Amino acid sequence: MAAKPSIPKGTRDFSPLEMSRRNYIFDTIKRAFRLFGFQQIETPAQENLSTLLGKYGDEGDKLLFKILNSGDFLGGIEPEELSKADSSKLATRISEKGLRYDLTVPFARYVVQHRNEIKFPFKRYQIQPVWRADRPQKGRYREFYQCDADIIGSTSLFNEVELVKLIETVFTRLGINVTIKLNNRKILSGIAEIIGEPERIVDITVAIDKIEKIGLEAVNEELLEKGLSAKAVENLQPFLSLEGTTTEKLDALKKMLSGSETGLKGIEEMESVTETCKNTEMPENIELDVSLARGLNYYTGTIIEVKANDVEIGSITGGGRYDNLTGIFGLPDVSGVGISFGADRIYDVMLKLGLFPDESCSGAEIIFVNFGRQEATESLKIIDRLRENGIAAQLYPDDAKIKKQLGYASDEGFKYVAMVGETEIANSTVGLKNLTTGEQKSLNVDELIQFLKK
Amino acid sequence: MAAKPSIPKGTRDFSPLEMSRRNYIFDTIKRAFRLFGFQQIETPAQENLSTLLGKYGDEGDKLLFKILNSGDFLGGIEPEELSKADSSKLATRISEKGLRYDLTVPFARYVVQHRNEIKFPFKRYQIQPVWRADRPQKGRYREFYQCDADIIGSTSLFNEVELVKLIETVFTRLGINVTIKLNNRKILSGIAEIIGEPERIVDITVAIDKIEKIGLEAVNEELLEKGLSAKAVENLQPFLSLEGTTTEKLDALKKMLSGSETGLKGIEEMESVTETCKNTEMPENIELDVSLARGLNYYTGTIIEVKANDVEIGSITGGGRYDNLTGIFGLPDVSGVGISFGADRIYDVMLKLGLFPDESCSGAEIIFVNFGRQEATESLKIIDRLRENGIAAQLYPDDAKIKKQLGYASDEGFKYVAMVGETEIANSTVGLKNLTTGEQKSLNVDELIQFLKK
Repeated sequence: MAAKPSIPKGTRDFSPLEMSRRNYIFDTIKRAFRLFGFQQIETPAQENLSTLLGKYGDEGDKLLFKILNSGDFLGGIEPEELSKADSSKLATRISEKGLRYDLTVPFARYVVQHRNEIKFPFKRYQIQPVWRADRPQKGRYREFYQCDADIIGSTSLFNEVELVKLIETVFTRLGINVTIKLNNRKILSGIAEIIGEPERIVDITVAIDKIEKIGLEAVNEELLEKGLSAKAVENLQPFLSLEGTTTEKLDALKKMLSGSETGLKGIEEMESVTETCKNTEMPENIELDVSLARGLNYYTGTIIEVKANDVEIGSITGGGRYDNLTGIFGLPDVSGVGISFGADRIYDVMLKLGLFPDESCSGAEIIFVNFGRQEATESLKIIDRLRENGIAAQLYPDDAKIKKQLGYASDEGFKYVAMVGETEIANSTVGLKNLTTGEQKSLNVDELIQFLKK
Repeated sequence: MAAKPSIPKGTRDFSPLEMSRRNYIFDTIKRAFRLFGFQQIETPAQENLSTLLGKYGDEGDKLLFKILNSGDFLGGIEPEELSKADSSKLATRISEKGLRYDLTVPFARYVVQHRNEIKFPFKRYQIQPVWRADRPQKGRYREFYQCDADIIGSTSLFNEVELVKLIETVFTRLGINVTIKLNNRKILSGIAEIIGEPERIVDITVAIDKIEKIGLEAVNEELLEKGLSAKAVENLQPFLSLEGTTTEKLDALKKMLSGSETGLKGIEEMESVTETCKNTEMPENIELDVSLARGLNYYTGTIIEVKANDVEIGSITGGGRYDNLTGIFGLPDVSGVGISFGADRIYDVMLKLGLFPDESCSGAEIIFVNFGRQEATESLKIIDRLRENGIAAQLYPDDAKIKKQLGYASDEGFKYVAMVGETEIANSTVGLKNLTTGEQKSLNVDELIQFLKK
């Protein structure tokens, strides 16, 4: 016998139960996307490596899955070249395509490629898997789904408000209590400016992003190690210990950043977003967090991150504004803002909190016992009628022992078992058994349809 | 400026309009799968090459997309090995994974790997993309979706009947007139036996599969070229010129194959399937076609193929019974039967026949004109109410010129434009314009909700 087959490290099969739960999440997100006017697109799993390389930093380039060219991929490569056995150089000669690493870069590529068909502002959503050759670990996979919504071609801050509302809608519907953290890249730039290290904004934000994880003291040490002056680190402290409501923080920041035009612009943007949220009766789970920095490299304005309140887990949704994403593909000055829902982490949160509704876990409704060829044929006629009425029904295909058939019905989570034997055929009835309560009754087909439709 | 970005040959982007049409097909198929009691699974895009290689013939092996191993993939390969520059040998050293080529082999792998969690008979459906490094041409892509439904772990011919019913349901709902062609591998074996060439069944079926394309004479020539005796080819002719109804053909075959036990078994199976179909009032678009042979290598019983009646195109759905698919992974004697809907061809058929409903082409419902910050904020409050009532509504994010905003609304296919200006705010009303008829009216929010819900 062959060895038991397996799947590649970091990938997963999804069983029917897992799929119905995953679909519950995807459907909720999809319905919200549509309600907010986002339109779906899809892009191919494979992109040209020229599209992907250099977009995710050196680390990201290494994590791209590369596709071996078809046919004689070594043809045309000089023997000297080959004998060097330099994997990274050879890779670009024998591979021209890679698997999509996120949905943002393919979206930017899509917008540039199809710019003449698109009407801006373009509100698109996209729900597809992405692949990363990361070291697999708990909660980190090599294939996982992203659910992205972006608005591109509009600088209006109402877009940020809409994304916050979209987040609210999705998590309210899923039943997850969340905190929506906001920041603005311009506030971070202002802070770097004010403490006298405008060029070190990346180091500063990378470090303060870790406060929650490693604590304030360790962050300060890291900053000193990276070569920030003691004075700058000292000047940074008031920013890191900001407390109070979002309004109070913004008021304090306004004074602290009064010397930075960029910083003040960031505060103004933040005020506009939070005020509109307040004026349209948004819940009060939105807060300014100046330590929020994610994906700083391409965000230029608002930064958004969502945390689940009742489970210890990283962010479950994130996004922000990028003023020049399509510039990398030759189309400058198109501003966009977007968010990405992390379906896998949302799944983990919902499982931990027991938030999946029972109905989402079983597609099965009613199964007909198979008493033999004639009875089964009569059953099929009734099953036809049920299906015409939208009721998921099926026949046990083999005329196995009744006990086996009933065991199957129960194991598979069917609510009802129907029995059409000789007597039932003679009387034009169906015997119905509720597998949960054990209750039995005899109905004609119309009554059965009415009963199951309820 | 960078060169205009592009995507790999044979792959496609899908625009919002294409996606809504594709979703119409996928949703119809998915709903039918569920109605028939099939449960969804998903498997990873990447499978180990050991799972994929050798399952699709030599030609298939060449069409597999292989993933380059991560990191230093040349490490451990001897210089002599490298200097040989043998692409196909090196491929297996530097690549351990490939992209899924169909959904059937991953399903077989899934069943064997999870056999202890699965209750048989297992009815699963799976809708995912597959990848083949085929030469791209009209209607043939390197990435395309398959929609598969299989029942595994049951030899009952009621499963075949259910699959025929499922096909009927899907194409009736999509509005496509189809002919469902049936055959049975055992009838083909019987024919090969009777004409005295039992070992040549593959050559015979490959040849007669082409009758429609190249004509009977060319098929006969091909058979002679392949070394069939003139006598055998002569004996084959009555089988190829079979005419009449399915019942008539089966009656004729019963006499012609009376000397072959296997052949008679095939006829018996075919009779059982078609009779049950007839007894449960199936339409009469089901016919026996002894020239049908598809995928012969693993089909062992019933073979199914669906043709669109009103468009010249290859088969749009196909499948059959395989008695030993999981045997390749070490689990023998598990019989299954399944079908695969070809979403891309179905799309082409529907487009040619104009079968997509209008509603399936636009997600947009109503857009609010943006007259400025205050008016937009008031609009957002009304938009919240609409969304709570399930109405897809959005705000034009920028306070651009009204003409531009109305042009956008019309280009994007919105049905209604809403206007909330100073007067409307004062009167608590909304100005509503129907973009199709030009009709305008003034409503309060409750009236607007009632109006749009209709």
